[in-house]
Amino acid sequence: MKGEWVAIDWGTSNFRAWLLAGNAVLDKRSASCGLLHIEPGQFDATLKTLLGEWVADSSPMIVMAGMVGSQQGWYEVDYCPLPAGADSLLEQRKKFITSWGSEAWIVPGLCKSPSGDLPDVMRGEEIQLLGLSLLEGIDNFQAILPGTHSKHVRMQQKQIVDFSTYMTGELFHVLITHSLLGRALPDAAVDDNAFLRGVEISRRNAALSQLLFSARTLRLSGEISAESVGDYLSGLLIGSEFTTGNTGPVWLVGSAVLTRRYQLAANAFGIQTCCIDGDCCFIAGMQFLQQRLTEKQNGQC
Amino acid sequence: MKGEWVAIDWGTSNFRAWLLAGNAVLDKRSASCGLLHIEPGQFDATLKTLLGEWVADSSPMIVMAGMVGSQQGWYEVDYCPLPAGADSLLEQRKKFITSWGSEAWIVPGLCKSPSGDLPDVMRGEEIQLLGLSLLEGIDNFQAILPGTHSKHVRMQQKQIVDFSTYMTGELFHVLITHSLLGRALPDAAVDDNAFLRGVEISRRNAALSQLLFSARTLRLSGEISAESVGDYLSGLLIGSEFTTGNTGPVWLVGSAVLTRRYQLAANAFGIQTCCIDGDCCFIAGMQFLQQRLTEKQNGQC
Repeated sequence: MKGEWVAIDWGTSNFRAWLLAGNAVLDKRSASCGLLHIEPGQFDATLKTLLGEWVADSSPMIVMAGMVGSQQGWYEVDYCPLPAGADSLLEQRKKFITSWGSEAWIVPGLCKSPSGDLPDVMRGEEIQLLGLSLLEGIDNFQAILPGTHSKHVRMQQKQIVDFSTYMTGELFHVLITHSLLGRALPDAAVDDNAFLRGVEISRRNAALSQLLFSARTLRLSGEISAESVGDYLSGLLIGSEFTTGNTGPVWLVGSAVLTRRYQLAANAFGIQTCCIDGDCCFIAGMQFLQQRLTEKQNGQC
Repeated sequence: MKGEWVAIDWGTSNFRAWLLAGNAVLDKRSASCGLLHIEPGQFDATLKTLLGEWVADSSPMIVMAGMVGSQQGWYEVDYCPLPAGADSLLEQRKKFITSWGSEAWIVPGLCKSPSGDLPDVMRGEEIQLLGLSLLEGIDNFQAILPGTHSKHVRMQQKQIVDFSTYMTGELFHVLITHSLLGRALPDAAVDDNAFLRGVEISRRNAALSQLLFSARTLRLSGEISAESVGDYLSGLLIGSEFTTGNTGPVWLVGSAVLTRRYQLAANAFGIQTCCIDGDCCFIAGMQFLQQRLTEKQNGQC
């Protein structure tokens, strides 16, 4: 159908796509079909299968973000250096045509390469930040995007000027799945008290590698039940994101389940927060970029 | 043979045993046969197989330490609370007779249960600390025992008065084996510069979960080769053990490979160190306990 287009967030582990008309969501789908599951040379065929009837009789424009633009992705798209806003993303975009005739775009990620300091990278979150800025009409803010690799970001005058990555989600996963801390745990129960106790312990002036062991010893001593070890560990890891950070108000961008946890932790540190759905931000950011790409195509800018 | 006895360090992953006459080592053996590999009720049979000809024609006294005395072990032996010295270990020992007639002892571990603070536990390391005290003739010292769960310990007047556990070794293992940081790494090369760079980065006032991501980004940016990622990560984790600790001189107790790494890191923090072999300390500690147990048996004390 004329005017339809597809927005895709294609990461390392997951694939998510929305069929849109303008900014109206007509349909969406997701699959555990991230980069790690795709053989080299199979991106085009995989995407065609994943999109199914969306591309059966038409060739909608496709705009993609995330690790699909990395070295291990479909086409490598160079990172934009900081500071970066919508214009930087548009300038470094990659365009190609799929086997079924769709015009496809991959948006670049961002890198921070301060001389002599630690570099950092993101792919995909920059779209959500752009969307947040547009949806809320704000140009200067701080945000946290929780996830496998949680991002702390500062935007000034519509430009992302700084960010840092915390391996919170991945640490939680490997510790619960593969370390002594997760051994022989029953199904987890939601336990905000255990979570907040973990947050409180994270504030101590001690190495995280030391504090983590308390998830074992508090279980051994019966102070935390086996069902609550996960929430305690989550509190420790999320809390430690706030121990050296800023204290100003912060946007929490993501799913309700995750942003709620971060909000609990931020409250314990006396940090003001606002939560916003990550998918809404992603779609808003993509829609802005898609509109600008269409205008450029039509020679309007 | 009369006078022969067996000292055993039986942990979660490994089994190590020494056949001794007094404090002279006659033979030794080890096996990847820790608690995790033993079915319930199979400790006696497993030990007989492991000791082989040592117990074929005789029933030497056996003294054991480590996780063999834990809830998941052969017999549970209650932890001794701090402060604890040789006398505490002897008082809470467990005695039984094996199926082949050996008199067997399990030495308890230690626990720290300060009211309102984080509890901590050790099993096995207390023997090395006792041995260090005896071998060097020192009653007051600080020590680090590197390993899966690194222990920082303070001894005063022959009593262990405080200790803390750092999950350094286990964190390194799960991150290299199961996280993005270890993905598609070639065989590791020894790289002291990468290790020391990790130590230097560990001193930053930032969350460990943030600093860890630099093992990814420095590789992406080509500043650290893939072969050296392991040593960089090791430096980060070992370095973070020193960031909030004491600055006084410290004994490093363990294998030469591990204590050398800790010595490099300690030097970077300006901390004086002495290294001593962990097995020598273990045997010295066990020999002292075995002698006291024999004296008690003979009614000498």
